Amino acid sequence: MRYAAIGGGKRVRPLLVTATASMYGVARQTAVKAGCAVEAIHVYSLIHDDLPCMDDDDLRHGKPTLHKAYDEATAVLAGDALHALAFEILSMPETVSDPFVRAELIATLAGASGMGGMAGGQMMDMVAAEKNYDLRAITRLQQLKTGALLTAAVEMGAILGRVPVDSRNHLRNYARDVGLAFQIADDLLDHEGDEAKAGKALRKDDEKGKQTFVTLMGADKARDQAHALVEQAVGHLAPHGREADLLRALARFIVERDR
Amino acid sequence: MRYAAIGGGKRVRPLLVTATASMYGVARQTAVKAGCAVEAIHVYSLIHDDLPCMDDDDLRHGKPTLHKAYDEATAVLAGDALHALAFEILSMPETVSDPFVRAELIATLAGASGMGGMAGGQMMDMVAAEKNYDLRAITRLQQLKTGALLTAAVEMGAILGRVPVDSRNHLRNYARDVGLAFQIADDLLDHEGDEAKAGKALRKDDEKGKQTFVTLMGADKARDQAHALVEQAVGHLAPHGREADLLRALARFIVERDR
Repeated sequence: MRYAAIGGGKRVRPLLVTATASMYGVARQTAVKAGCAVEAIHVYSLIHDDLPCMDDDDLRHGKPTLHKAYDEATAVLAGDALHALAFEILSMPETVSDPFVRAELIATLAGASGMGGMAGGQMMDMVAAEKNYDLRAITRLQQLKTGALLTAAVEMGAILGRVPVDSRNHLRNYARDVGLAFQIADDLLDHEGDEAKAGKALRKDDEKGKQTFVTLMGADKARDQAHALVEQAVGHLAPHGREADLLRALARFIVERDR
Repeated sequence: MRYAAIGGGKRVRPLLVTATASMYGVARQTAVKAGCAVEAIHVYSLIHDDLPCMDDDDLRHGKPTLHKAYDEATAVLAGDALHALAFEILSMPETVSDPFVRAELIATLAGASGMGGMAGGQMMDMVAAEKNYDLRAITRLQQLKTGALLTAAVEMGAILGRVPVDSRNHLRNYARDVGLAFQIADDLLDHEGDEAKAGKALRKDDEKGKQTFVTLMGADKARDQAHALVEQAVGHLAPHGREADLLRALARFIVERDR
């Protein structure tokens, strides 16, 4: 669990939790704990996605994937235990004392992790090569596989900030656009990025004949689209002043990153 | 998810939830939902435990295991999605309206599923053949792998019944003894049971040279021990009248079952 979770990764999801929570004056320690739960879910999903029966990846964050460093059984179980750990963290009164808030955080994270979120998206991805998805299906796939957890991260920050559910729409819209931009940037990096910087094997989707935003739109149009989505995401934050600057910077970082 | 969850299995864990909850007058529909969450965790653990990299089992409940009927990726993801589903169910206000109760149910189930419960027990089990565990280590392994979820099932029934945490000791003791008896009965069935009735391959532990309660104690002593544990478990229910008869019957069923 430690091998996969510590010493690698950009921590984008916990940053989305803490950046959103900080807009509403949430204590940093509380937001960081919720961020840890989100990151535990993210790391668990990477471990399972890297398995030989899934994407069969040997390298992650510049080091051997967990099943390479240990073995497959350890990888399945470390992923399972990180999955449970996320809910253990969120269900502790020490994380958040208000049980309403705890229950809402858990509902949001469980929804993002299950068949209507990441597991469903990865299942769509497993059959992507044979299905020959169009742009609409790829968008749906990525909204589940990547978007659901990014949206959950932002939403959990808002839940901690006690933002009522019907006042969270602009944040959800921000997260949706950021999520899509994030995935397009990922596809661009996969297409033309540097393996050493990425710390993982690239161009595997191309080899498998899987459709991505880049194969469907072309690299130039995909890049334009990612930038447009980021500006759109930033636009959703218009009701906020300087307190949303970190979310704005995060949106821009997501398309400008080189790994 | 449906293939693995429906049409097989004894439903012992949901029965422990509903039988305990019914002692305290909990609405049956509420207890059944919590029981579904517990069963989802149980089924997810069976799917992952059956994987080629784990126990490599081809048969479960008399039909091909999930990775045989579909493929390994589907099995990993169906397990992951059932794991998330358990927390989705428990975090819905429709399941239990009181958020304190929801949060406590989730904490109990997440604790039973993670590294301090089933995932930890399965990890111990994966290295059991080389570790040559003694009776004490096997007891610890089984308390994690099997006992934790059985105890959680009983405890969740009590949580639904709003039994205060320090009035649950006798129920926890009941569950601990039942859990151990359950595992000894399992080892006996594995040693001398009928594969057709069990609906799965037996005597695999013997082949792998893994220690079990039967190899360590001998079949006769193990059988005596299982019966003694059941009587001890029933003894813990002495403060209760007829309302605990179902829990008493369940304890006896657990050692008398032939599958």
